[in-house]
Amino acid sequence: MPRSKFVENILKRVNAEEGDLIEIKVDGEKIKGILMPHHEFSDENIIIVKLSNGYNIGVEVKKNIKINVLEKKKEKTVKKRKIPFDPDKPTVSIIGTGGTIACYVDYRTGAVHPATSAEDLAFSVPEIFDICNVKAKVAFQMLSENLKVQHWQTLAREITKAFNNERVSGVVVPHGTDTMSYTSAALSFMLKNLSGPVVLVGAQRSSDRPSSDAAQNLLAAVTLAAKSDLGEVVVVMHGETSDTFTCIHRGTRVRKMHTSRRDAFKTINEKPLGKIEDGKIELTGEYRKRIAGKVIVDDKMDEDVALVYFYPGMKEDELPDKKGLVIMGTGLGHISIDLVKRVKELIDNGSVVVMTSQCIFGRVNMRVYSNGRELLKAGVISGEDMLPEVAYVKLMWALAHAKDRDDVARIMHTDIAGEISGRSISTTFL
Amino acid sequence: MPRSKFVENILKRVNAEEGDLIEIKVDGEKIKGILMPHHEFSDENIIIVKLSNGYNIGVEVKKNIKINVLEKKKEKTVKKRKIPFDPDKPTVSIIGTGGTIACYVDYRTGAVHPATSAEDLAFSVPEIFDICNVKAKVAFQMLSENLKVQHWQTLAREITKAFNNERVSGVVVPHGTDTMSYTSAALSFMLKNLSGPVVLVGAQRSSDRPSSDAAQNLLAAVTLAAKSDLGEVVVVMHGETSDTFTCIHRGTRVRKMHTSRRDAFKTINEKPLGKIEDGKIELTGEYRKRIAGKVIVDDKMDEDVALVYFYPGMKEDELPDKKGLVIMGTGLGHISIDLVKRVKELIDNGSVVVMTSQCIFGRVNMRVYSNGRELLKAGVISGEDMLPEVAYVKLMWALAHAKDRDDVARIMHTDIAGEISGRSISTTFL
Repeated sequence: MPRSKFVENILKRVNAEEGDLIEIKVDGEKIKGILMPHHEFSDENIIIVKLSNGYNIGVEVKKNIKINVLEKKKEKTVKKRKIPFDPDKPTVSIIGTGGTIACYVDYRTGAVHPATSAEDLAFSVPEIFDICNVKAKVAFQMLSENLKVQHWQTLAREITKAFNNERVSGVVVPHGTDTMSYTSAALSFMLKNLSGPVVLVGAQRSSDRPSSDAAQNLLAAVTLAAKSDLGEVVVVMHGETSDTFTCIHRGTRVRKMHTSRRDAFKTINEKPLGKIEDGKIELTGEYRKRIAGKVIVDDKMDEDVALVYFYPGMKEDELPDKKGLVIMGTGLGHISIDLVKRVKELIDNGSVVVMTSQCIFGRVNMRVYSNGRELLKAGVISGEDMLPEVAYVKLMWALAHAKDRDDVARIMHTDIAGEISGRSISTTFL
Repeated sequence: MPRSKFVENILKRVNAEEGDLIEIKVDGEKIKGILMPHHEFSDENIIIVKLSNGYNIGVEVKKNIKINVLEKKKEKTVKKRKIPFDPDKPTVSIIGTGGTIACYVDYRTGAVHPATSAEDLAFSVPEIFDICNVKAKVAFQMLSENLKVQHWQTLAREITKAFNNERVSGVVVPHGTDTMSYTSAALSFMLKNLSGPVVLVGAQRSSDRPSSDAAQNLLAAVTLAAKSDLGEVVVVMHGETSDTFTCIHRGTRVRKMHTSRRDAFKTINEKPLGKIEDGKIELTGEYRKRIAGKVIVDDKMDEDVALVYFYPGMKEDELPDKKGLVIMGTGLGHISIDLVKRVKELIDNGSVVVMTSQCIFGRVNMRVYSNGRELLKAGVISGEDMLPEVAYVKLMWALAHAKDRDDVARIMHTDIAGEISGRSISTTFL
């Protein structure tokens, strides 16, 4: 949200502008640093100050605050830049959506900006223009935890336009990391006949922090979009905590597995498709190649689906009556026997119920123990080795594309976008 | 469940008994093998046959089935055995609860039995009697996905009795793997002043399979219970896929991370407490030592708590009105901004809401982004680096022990049984 009137007035009164060196006294504390632009993710009564050690802190503006300008900023606001065009280079589309990666740092002033245009984002890593031309636009500007099905659909259509109308070699989608793997799964089902890679990329630490992964990830994503023959939706993120390489994860096999580490994203139940190191792309996994011709967008979704986590003590009414229900069961795909009646009732009333595992790794197999067999008998569909979140997204897509319930089951059991494998590869565990 | 009358009658008619070599013809197929005892986890119309390759298969008994006895069993049923007693050895209590590990194989007949007594289980690994005396009993006999709070309480009381009345050096609890970590967390909060280790142990593959982990895990668990100075609840399971060592996991830090691998159990957000290799215990982590005196059981729980998994598209009514609610949010602990109103409403009505992360690894931090700050403002409690399942169990315990809501918050923020650490140790990721 923007700054409050209250804060704006205080800053105006002391003539403090962004880029100025200021001193703040509040609650007996003294803070000295550069006044930073307001951050879209900050509260209205917070001002951001960059300390001499490079870190930004947020200071709550209270009535007793005192602000003095010690030194006016040295440079005027950056002028509108023009993106260079080189007819010998491939062109990559960058479609902004928000998130940590969209907060870029201006190298000259040291200020952190929310990238209000994707151009800004590209200019924050100027090496990009050595690789390709950039067509940039912003689809929306949001924290990824706020995204919904309609945003996935908007994005799918924008990506399709970029390939079909602007004839780009690939599309890069900077994205918040929280729900990036839900979006990558949705795009994987929605986009067909991809004529180039669709690369989602994020950052775990924003660019104003010394440990930011934003620049390396963005550069790797653009490299992949410009130079590879991939025809899939992938996620590109740090491969290790250090800045050695970035990993290429299939869009239907990836999951954020750590709240804060830079290498939080992991491919689950298969190996990553490859990596990017020192500007070189290594594709080691089996991947779908790009197809010449028009990209087809097929983004119909039935949103009447829920994702539910089983736990000991769960009550029947926590299994909601929806057209589709994905359960995260225990182990091989189990829930308590006293919930089976409710599941049967839902299915008898027309719901489609899919079983996945809260273990995250491995494959569901409901044939081994009696509770599982009861669920199969009731008509529950096995999620095989699909990630629960991917099964959720796929079920929305399947319900919108199937003729009847048998057809939903058929789609759920069919590998559409690399989300299911015939057998589990056990070399990809923790 | 037991065999159906229908199956019993067919077997009686052809005089087929457990242990006999039989031939089955059904639906044009011919199957030859040893008729096995009925498995508690099997359907009533299934008979189990051990093939010559060592694997068991279940065959559905249909009307058109033909069964011939080719050879009668060679040996009579095993006689009741007496557990030897050696006054120079420590005594370990084995308290059975069911699960895969409780299906043991009789070495002489090769038959798989559900261990109807914990003695049977101990006798299935005779090396146990080289280490200690065994006091065995069965608390209940269930698939772990069917367990509820009352079973945790029963178990806590049985364990307390074993320590206080029978003066054992440690207690081993063979347990189904599906919800073993929920039980280990519950026991960790319920048991105080432990005078010895409480070791939960399971098997990912039952003893009739060549790849079973049952014997090694059970032997390691008994070793730890007999010989160590631990005063904590721990889980002991395979450390690798091969039979090299077993890992000792703290009861509040462990999670089943794979549906089928033998090394499925992993310590999350810290290092395992240690390992057991070639009968030797190595405790490398910081652990609580046993305390002389009486064990105290403190097993009051408030069951009006739910565990809910956030996902894009979640609706307000999927956040149920309970006394306690643990949310598995995205990333650092987020949910969509349009659910914040509902959370605020729940808290204003007296609910306690705790935030954890579906990333599984890492620590929740709601101060970084605006949605998180909105949740903090609404009164959501940070789950720190607690596992979501552990936060769920702990919240039931906290609600039953706190004076008021502030006191619940205080308990949730206090490290009771190793479930929270002051800072995250980042060396324990995938």
